[in-house]
Amino acid sequence: MANNASGLTEYIGSTKTGDTIGLVIANVDSQLLDAMKLEKSYRSIGIIGARTGAGPHIMAADEAVKATNTEIVLIELPRDTKGGAGHGSLIVFGGEDVSDVKRAVEVTLQEVERTFGDVYANDAGHLELQYTARASYAINKAFGAPVGKSFGLIVGAPAAIGLVMADAAVKSANVEVVGYGSPGNGGTSYSNEAILQITGDSGAVRQAVISAREIGKKMLSSLGDEPTSSASSYI
Amino acid sequence: MANNASGLTEYIGSTKTGDTIGLVIANVDSQLLDAMKLEKSYRSIGIIGARTGAGPHIMAADEAVKATNTEIVLIELPRDTKGGAGHGSLIVFGGEDVSDVKRAVEVTLQEVERTFGDVYANDAGHLELQYTARASYAINKAFGAPVGKSFGLIVGAPAAIGLVMADAAVKSANVEVVGYGSPGNGGTSYSNEAILQITGDSGAVRQAVISAREIGKKMLSSLGDEPTSSASSYI
Amino acid sequence: MANNASGLTEYIGSTKTGDTIGLVIANVDSQLLDAMKLEKSYRSIGIIGARTGAGPHIMAADEAVKATNTEIVLIELPRDTKGGAGHGSLIVFGGEDVSDVKRAVEVTLQEVERTFGDVYANDAGHLELQYTARASYAINKAFGAPVGKSFGLIVGAPAAIGLVMADAAVKSANVEVVGYGSPGNGGTSYSNEAILQITGDSGAVRQAVISAREIGKKMLSSLGDEPTSSASSYI
Repeated sequence: MANNASGLTEYIGSTKTGDTIGLVIANVDSQLLDAMKLEKSYRSIGIIGARTGAGPHIMAADEAVKATNTEIVLIELPRDTKGGAGHGSLIVFGGEDVSDVKRAVEVTLQEVERTFGDVYANDAGHLELQYTARASYAINKAFGAPVGKSFGLIVGAPAAIGLVMADAAVKSANVEVVGYGSPGNGGTSYSNEAILQITGDSGAVRQAVISAREIGKKMLSSLGDEPTSSASSYI
Repeated sequence: MANNASGLTEYIGSTKTGDTIGLVIANVDSQLLDAMKLEKSYRSIGIIGARTGAGPHIMAADEAVKATNTEIVLIELPRDTKGGAGHGSLIVFGGEDVSDVKRAVEVTLQEVERTFGDVYANDAGHLELQYTARASYAINKAFGAPVGKSFGLIVGAPAAIGLVMADAAVKSANVEVVGYGSPGNGGTSYSNEAILQITGDSGAVRQAVISAREIGKKMLSSLGDEPTSSASSYI
Repeated sequence: MANNASGLTEYIGSTKTGDTIGLVIANVDSQLLDAMKLEKSYRSIGIIGARTGAGPHIMAADEAVKATNTEIVLIELPRDTKGGAGHGSLIVFGGEDVSDVKRAVEVTLQEVERTFGDVYANDAGHLELQYTARASYAINKAFGAPVGKSFGLIVGAPAAIGLVMADAAVKSANVEVVGYGSPGNGGTSYSNEAILQITGDSGAVRQAVISAREIGKKMLSSLGDEPTSSASSYI
C-alpha cells in the first residue's frame, strides 16, 4: 500500500506498534487553540496519537522532552486498545519553533519501539512495566512524579492482577508510591487496569518493577497463554 | 433468521448499519420516567440505539425533528463501536402522540443510511464528516450549534488525526468554531477521537468539511489500508 | 498449557467465564492501602477481577458475603467486555483473617458460573437478568438496594433495548425502582447499556425480570442471531 500521508507537511511518521502516528502543526489556528484549552499556548505543536498504549508513549515522550527544546502541553488517555483492556493516547508537545516539535515527535516515534519492550499480553489481558533512572517533564505531567528521580510504572489488566502486582512491587523494595489508578477511582479512563507509580532509589525502583513483572506474568497466564511481548524487554 | 421483534408493538425497525434499532414506548411507566431524569417528560417516547455511530444518528435525528412534531429529550454517547475508537448512541424523542414519535424513529432509521456516507474507516481508525445547510434541534441539543444555520462536524480517530483535520478545516474557510471535543477534555466519552463542530456560511462550512476529509484520509491511510465508506458520500 | 499461577499464595482460581480471576493478599502493604482509598481498611483482602461481567460478579459476591465473615470494600466497573457493550469488574472483600477472604473469593468463583446463566448475547449486543429472593451487602453497596429484600437486575445493550426492557419490567408487576443507569447519565462507565434495579415482593420481582427477558430477547434478535447464554438459566 502507498502511504498517502508522506506528502503532507503535517506528517512525520507512523508505526504499526500501537497504531501510532506522529504529526506537527507549524502554526495552529487561533480559534482551535482557544477551543483546545491548553494550559500554555504555543504556535507550533507536535502530536502523538495511538490506538494502543499510554505508558509506552508517555515514557517515549519523556525522552523527547529531555532531548529537545519543547514542553508537554497535553496528555489525554482515551479508553481504547482496540477492544483490549487499556488506553490509547494523545500527547501534544509545544515549542517556539516547528523544527523543535518535529524533532520531539521523531524521538518519540523512535523511542516507542523500546518502551513497548515490557508490555506483555495474551487474549485475557496485559501487563506493562516501565522504568527510568531519571524522570523528566512528561512523566511529571502525566503522573506527578518528581523530575530528576528514578521512576517506575506497573500496570496489570484485568485490574485485579494489577492490584496484586502493585502490592508485590512495594513489598519487594524500599520505594515510595507516587500514585495509584484503578477502573473507577481515577488515574484511568475506566480501563480495566490497576496502575501504580513509584519513585525512589533507582536500584530499588528497578527491583520493584521486576518483582511485579514476575508475579504478573504468572497470574495472567492462569487466564490464557503465556503472555508475550512484541518487542525486546529493556528492564 | 426470523426477526422475532417484528410482532412487538414497541419495535419499529433496525439496520445493520451501526447495529441500529428503533423503538417506541406509547406510554412510558411513570417510575421509569422519573428515574430517567429527562429534562422534559413526555408520555410517548421514540428511541434510537446503536452500537456504532453517534454523529450519523444525531444528524439523522435532526432531520426527524424537522419532519415531525417531536422534540429531542435525550442524547447520550456510550463509548462503543464494538472495539473501534468511537461512540454508539442512545437518542430519545418525546411527543404528545405515539404516531409522532414513531414517525420520528422511522425517519431517523431511513436517514441514517445517508448520514453514514462520509464515515471512512480502516483497521486503525476512522473519519467522520457531516454537513447540513440548516441545523435543527438535535444538532443544537448535542453540540450547542445555532438552529437554522449551516453546521459541519469533523471527527478523526485516533484523536491525533482529528486534531490536524480540525486545524485544516478552520484554516480552509471562514467558519466559526462551535465546539471541540477530545479524549480527556470533554465532548467525548473517552473515545479516541478529536471532534470539531463548526457553523457559518453554508459554502464555507462545506468547504471546511471537505478540506478536513481530504487530509484525514491521507493521514489515516498511513496506519493501514485506504479508508473506505460503507455507504455513498453525500457531501 | 501450564497454569504458572498455581504456585502463588495469592492465587485462588480463575474461570474462562468472563475471564475471571480470584486473588488474595494476606497483609496488604500500608502504602498501597492508603493509595487505594478504601472506605474501610482491612489487613487481608480478597480480589475478584473480570474482563466481562459486572452483574454476575456482584450477584456472586453477594452470596459470598452471606456465606463468610467478610465485607465488600470496593466495587469498580471498568468499561470492558473485550470489545462488547458492557463492563468488567473489580471487587474487593475485606476481612480480619486471610482464610475468610479466601473463602469469599472461592464462593464467588463458584457462584459466578450460575449467575452467568441469564446473560444472553449475540454479535450485536447482550441482555442480563439477575434475581435474588434476599439481597445482601454486595448488592446494597453496588446498587443501593435494601438488604434482606428481593432484588432484580435488568440490563440490555445496546441501551435502547435495555430501556424498553426496563419499561416492560415495571409494567408487568408491582415492583419498586431502586436505580436506573444509562450510558451518559450515571450508573455505567459509559457502557452501551440501560440498567434497571428493582426491589419488592419476591414473586413480583421475579415476574418483572422474566417479562424483561422475554421482550429483550425478541428485540436483540432483530439485530442478529437469536441471543444465547453460555450457561443454564437460573431464573
